[in-house]
Amino acid sequence: MASPSGERSPEVRKDAVWNRWVIFSPARAKRPYEFKSKSPADPNPNQQCPFCIGHEHECAPEIFRVPTHRPDWKIRVIQNLYPALSRTLPQPHEPGSVLPGFGFHDVVIESPVHPLQLSDLSPSEIALVFLAFTQRILQVAAHHSIQYVQVFKNHGASAGASMSHSHSQMMALPIIPPSVSARLSSMKDYFDQTGKCFICGIQREDLLIDSSTNFFSLVPFAATFPFEIWIVPRYHSAHFHELDDEKAVELGGLLKLMLRKMSLQLNNPPFNYMIHTSPLRGNGSELAYSHWFIQIVPQLIGVAGFELGTGCYINPVFPEDAAKVLREVKVPESG
Amino acid sequence: MASPSGERSPEVRKDAVWNRWVIFSPARAKRPYEFKSKSPADPNPNQQCPFCIGHEHECAPEIFRVPTHRPDWKIRVIQNLYPALSRTLPQPHEPGSVLPGFGFHDVVIESPVHPLQLSDLSPSEIALVFLAFTQRILQVAAHHSIQYVQVFKNHGASAGASMSHSHSQMMALPIIPPSVSARLSSMKDYFDQTGKCFICGIQREDLLIDSSTNFFSLVPFAATFPFEIWIVPRYHSAHFHELDDEKAVELGGLLKLMLRKMSLQLNNPPFNYMIHTSPLRGNGSELAYSHWFIQIVPQLIGVAGFELGTGCYINPVFPEDAAKVLREVKVPESG
Repeated sequence: MASPSGERSPEVRKDAVWNRWVIFSPARAKRPYEFKSKSPADPNPNQQCPFCIGHEHECAPEIFRVPTHRPDWKIRVIQNLYPALSRTLPQPHEPGSVLPGFGFHDVVIESPVHPLQLSDLSPSEIALVFLAFTQRILQVAAHHSIQYVQVFKNHGASAGASMSHSHSQMMALPIIPPSVSARLSSMKDYFDQTGKCFICGIQREDLLIDSSTNFFSLVPFAATFPFEIWIVPRYHSAHFHELDDEKAVELGGLLKLMLRKMSLQLNNPPFNYMIHTSPLRGNGSELAYSHWFIQIVPQLIGVAGFELGTGCYINPVFPEDAAKVLREVKVPESG
Repeated sequence: MASPSGERSPEVRKDAVWNRWVIFSPARAKRPYEFKSKSPADPNPNQQCPFCIGHEHECAPEIFRVPTHRPDWKIRVIQNLYPALSRTLPQPHEPGSVLPGFGFHDVVIESPVHPLQLSDLSPSEIALVFLAFTQRILQVAAHHSIQYVQVFKNHGASAGASMSHSHSQMMALPIIPPSVSARLSSMKDYFDQTGKCFICGIQREDLLIDSSTNFFSLVPFAATFPFEIWIVPRYHSAHFHELDDEKAVELGGLLKLMLRKMSLQLNNPPFNYMIHTSPLRGNGSELAYSHWFIQIVPQLIGVAGFELGTGCYINPVFPEDAAKVLREVKVPESG
């Protein structure tokens, strides 16, 4: 829908994954290639912090490290010093509108040294981070009241990171969170109507950014945020924690490429990434229509009263335009 | 659920209005009365801007003013210079997952002069703002493709305000937004089970802040955000735009009191408020279970990867504690 001047008119698109509307409104904004973060994530100087190697005693208890029992660790999975949930198993309780806040809130320290960011690690090193997630998910899955594990990363203070040392977080929850319920319900409807998994058919040439043997990255058709990126396995898999060693390295390579492209194009923006997976204990039927993926969201615009009120987001960049810009970013060989 | 030390354990509560879980996690945070905005809204010096009286020609076209045709206006309703939706009626189109972005994105200038904030106005002056909303809602309701009107205010740059001159916004949408659908569905379920409107029975002594003849303010049982405040009509009414002149003044008085309490207690935080009302054209049955209210959200904590991923929020202040703090704020008589 181009206007006579060539400027596109606003468009409202239904996001099929979460079943919600997104408003695309390019007239409010600059051209797609002009988007840059106004508050880039802080540089990460060579300082020391409790997450640095040699400072382990300043942290909350360790759960495991990689490699195990080695003082020269590469990754540590530790408890969060300020957990949002309590690890103390509650007394038996009635199901209802109030539950004890039982769960696990863990931190994955991604590097022993301070100045390295996730995108500085090699694909094999990023793979170790993914495999630490899968190992920890399998551990918490042993607790019968844990329903879902949300893995996420906050990079940069304005994206919610309180520590600049590269880390991710894992929250093992006693409930299925609202967005996960909405996604499963929407994916089930699609499967019931078509007999297919929606995510298996999500690839589209004009939305594609990059791809490898088992994964591809794209900007979704109804992206909630400008320059939002998804990394999707080409093969059908409901649970992220089914990832094997070999695919983890390949996924590490594609994540690294996306983070570097985003940083080069958008001026090192603060960002979040989230792994969207399936509940730990379903009835089994959802394995056919639920398909895990990673969502990367650079923080370029804020959320205000309209979004809080409606749950409807205004995205100033059409996904086709964002995909084109990201597809064309040239990443230097080194690094 | 108090721990032996007297500190409360985390709790997960179901928000019945939007049917979503909220995690209450006080151990992460300071005590309730210690919450203060670290980045208070900018002071509003006596400068001039396009929204000031005498600068009308610098604005997008006016829709109406109050009083009508008077150069010494009190309120102006104008088009947004950078609308998120297009006022151009689209060609007929098939319903589907893509719609033209038709709608109205308007601005309500709440005062002719720059330094006055909404909370500086008298209850009668705030009533004029509410009545401007109702008048404009009735105007846009004449367009058959408009489904819902979201009224909202962004106060302070970090709450999304690009102009410091006191104003609200109205977005007339061609869709029923996601949060409104979720709320109606949840309220319908409650009504089907109990025969009652959920909001009609929402008042609870420990959550109450203040009240007047026709309205009361409270912190909801499963508040999404710390110190979130709702103002609720005591009488059952589905549509905000049914508000009459007399009740508008009373509502103005209670909103003013809440904004002043929030500003005094929380160090003049940036905030958003949203009017939650009902769709313009339903089948009529929702009139029995849908009940409008105002939600005020001070910006005290950020949203990060966990909330983006799960749609589940972590609130560091129990609603009972927030209500007690706000109930006890002493507001000076003047002003």
